[in-house]
Amino acid sequence: MSHTSPKKEEKDTKGISVKKEENFSDWYSEVVLKAELADYAPIKGFMVIRPNAYAIWEKIQEYFNPIIKAKGISNSYFPFLIPDSFFKKEAEHAKGFAPELAYVQGTEEGERLALRPTSETIMYDSFSKWIRSWRDLPLQLNQWCNIIRWEVKQTKPFIRTREFLWQEGHCAFESEKEAIENMEDIITEYKTMIQELLAIPVLMGKKSIAEKFPGAKTTMTVEALMPDGKALQCGTSHNLGQGFAESFNVSFKGKDEKEHNCWQTSWGFSTRLIGALIMVHGDNKGLVLPPKIAEKKIALVPIIFEDSKDKVMKKAKEIARKLSKFGVILDDRESYSSGWKFNEWEMKGIPIRIEIGPRDLAKKQLTIIRRDNGKKETISEEKISDYISNLLEKIQNDMYQKAEKFLKSNITDASSMNELKNKLKEGKIVKVYMKDSPFVEEKIKEATGAQSRI
Amino acid sequence: MSHTSPKKEEKDTKGISVKKEENFSDWYSEVVLKAELADYAPIKGFMVIRPNAYAIWEKIQEYFNPIIKAKGISNSYFPFLIPDSFFKKEAEHAKGFAPELAYVQGTEEGERLALRPTSETIMYDSFSKWIRSWRDLPLQLNQWCNIIRWEVKQTKPFIRTREFLWQEGHCAFESEKEAIENMEDIITEYKTMIQELLAIPVLMGKKSIAEKFPGAKTTMTVEALMPDGKALQCGTSHNLGQGFAESFNVSFKGKDEKEHNCWQTSWGFSTRLIGALIMVHGDNKGLVLPPKIAEKKIALVPIIFEDSKDKVMKKAKEIARKLSKFGVILDDRESYSSGWKFNEWEMKGIPIRIEIGPRDLAKKQLTIIRRDNGKKETISEEKISDYISNLLEKIQNDMYQKAEKFLKSNITDASSMNELKNKLKEGKIVKVYMKDSPFVEEKIKEATGAQSRI
Repeated sequence: MSHTSPKKEEKDTKGISVKKEENFSDWYSEVVLKAELADYAPIKGFMVIRPNAYAIWEKIQEYFNPIIKAKGISNSYFPFLIPDSFFKKEAEHAKGFAPELAYVQGTEEGERLALRPTSETIMYDSFSKWIRSWRDLPLQLNQWCNIIRWEVKQTKPFIRTREFLWQEGHCAFESEKEAIENMEDIITEYKTMIQELLAIPVLMGKKSIAEKFPGAKTTMTVEALMPDGKALQCGTSHNLGQGFAESFNVSFKGKDEKEHNCWQTSWGFSTRLIGALIMVHGDNKGLVLPPKIAEKKIALVPIIFEDSKDKVMKKAKEIARKLSKFGVILDDRESYSSGWKFNEWEMKGIPIRIEIGPRDLAKKQLTIIRRDNGKKETISEEKISDYISNLLEKIQNDMYQKAEKFLKSNITDASSMNELKNKLKEGKIVKVYMKDSPFVEEKIKEATGAQSRI
Repeated sequence: MSHTSPKKEEKDTKGISVKKEENFSDWYSEVVLKAELADYAPIKGFMVIRPNAYAIWEKIQEYFNPIIKAKGISNSYFPFLIPDSFFKKEAEHAKGFAPELAYVQGTEEGERLALRPTSETIMYDSFSKWIRSWRDLPLQLNQWCNIIRWEVKQTKPFIRTREFLWQEGHCAFESEKEAIENMEDIITEYKTMIQELLAIPVLMGKKSIAEKFPGAKTTMTVEALMPDGKALQCGTSHNLGQGFAESFNVSFKGKDEKEHNCWQTSWGFSTRLIGALIMVHGDNKGLVLPPKIAEKKIALVPIIFEDSKDKVMKKAKEIARKLSKFGVILDDRESYSSGWKFNEWEMKGIPIRIEIGPRDLAKKQLTIIRRDNGKKETISEEKISDYISNLLEKIQNDMYQKAEKFLKSNITDASSMNELKNKLKEGKIVKVYMKDSPFVEEKIKEATGAQSRI
């Protein structure tokens, strides 16, 4: 990062051309591209996950892996290709996934092989071999992998694509009590993670009979409210009951010496979380990253003039070293102007910008700019490390508070179908008393276009 | 892990039924299955990577990620499906991969989509969009992902399967000098990692013209010697020259204001490393893990008698806490006998076993057994932490030394074709002077069955 060139020829770095509040969908697409989070792939419905977004995914993995490992859940990897017949064993599961399956072109294998849309079937085939007695339980596995679902709906990077990355956990227990506890424990961990790491408040609840996972007895979900008034599913946890166990013969010899079917759960979240993060926090200058999820929390920009260049650079390097534990980008490129750099790091959502110029140097101070609200302060150089540490915490909290305020102000209730319709039109989440019946739900969906969570 | 049951009904835990030195291939398959490293999948040529092996892969990732990140190489993720036409753009590459490609069954897309066998083509399509000027260089990306190659040869878990996991790095530079430096730097990092982390000595060299990567100008490789006398490729690094850059239009405007093609590299290693680890270090009791790659370095087995049970268990827990930084499995299962547990942790390759029984308790000592050579010692309880720390280092070194001795004793030279043939038959690596010509190489291969590295 130390190219020098007299010519200031710069990349096209115009800001976002549409406002978030005016055209949310176009705004989103622009942020995704201009913050270099994803790019469109040469194949319809696919995306390239660029380093800025992949670093977010890695932070999520770093947070979540120790949590599951402490619960005795291990990572593993199961085949990407799944025999077609496996999907037919569990009737509801088969029906749910049939429209989205893609297959490998005729091989010498006897039957069609599907590209992994989720791994219940291929994993439980192994579970049935590995589980013999109660001593082998609980069996708790997770995998991080790519998923293919041949979506026919309009795709959108991170939110809905034909390929995405996710984690899927699969556990088998002796009793339904343990399975329910696991389902609830994990969905609560999802809620905590999304709120604390991504600063996105979520609502936790059950899905209705019509909306639950194909093959599950109960599905729990965490949902976040997007600025366009739509709820976005951010993670689900399923009590699978004994349905898959029966279809795949996942059984164990109990302490009573009799054969029993296992009680199973599965749960997952995906790179869609990155989409939620962009939507909830982004603004008209681009991405805004909560400090905890930002790999690099500080962009340090030395303000270069010919006569003070060496002194300023020396000090900038010293400060970068001092703050290195926070992850610092020292932007010393001489082929770009300071203004261009400010826009660049704002677009990419770096939580704090530090500027240091000849005036700062003279006063032994630094200029600090918060990405989330644009506030600017000057801080004495010697206090910088503690100040940054506190400020990062404050930004994380402020971003959460702001998102929570938005969520709360958009939850309301209704006591008639008309009231429900009107409030939904305003983009609100509406609480109603409703019978959990696919018939009632269909009626509401017809009348309002809305989905329900219990 | 605290089930209690009066009945000692135990899983089948017979040791390895064939000896490593007698039937290497069957021995390998048994270790893979019985140490629960992998299992066969319901689809021919595929495998399930079980937690014991996946944990090794995670250790490799933890080691390698910081190394590449410090060099400015970022992780990312590119589509799993690749348009067929992409493979045809670079002629050698197309020819090399054609026999191993699998395709998705007819979709609405205009052309066939291949399942990712390597990502040069799909990545460089993006590179050509992203790279405009010398300011965008170097562009250095890596991805961890699954790969599908429709092998027709006999498959073997970790060593050759139709699906495997790997990392693939792809870099674009302004000059060939930088590309060559990157190729050499990475292959050296591979060598260091395999030697220091996996305790496997490797030989580094160039591949011949006939054996290099399809599309590469030069391929460097690190190769380890397996006990059956065969060399196993453990990682490769390619100088791609400008061939792909030309085919995919990966060009940049230089400081001279003219358009130039980039100089590119790609490099990768795969889950095959786990296979090498098993082969090199395993013995007739199962897997042997070098301490640095072992997630759990100690199996702590309390020797339980009814009258001293509580006291022994209390002490075992205390010791487990004290040694927790090393990763301890406290095996307090009462439904298995001590002997069964010894076999279990030996099979799974845990570097150190600690036994604690009533006699140890009385003498304030612990019994320590090394997995690599079976040596047993008793150590005073108060010195245990330092002792373990030193012992782990010693085991790592001893395992490397042993493997290195084997490698060195199997390198020899030859000055005639007959001598070469004879020495190859003994399972040696033979150094010869040879012209790097596909014709000469083919002759040697015909005569001896051996491949060459330069």
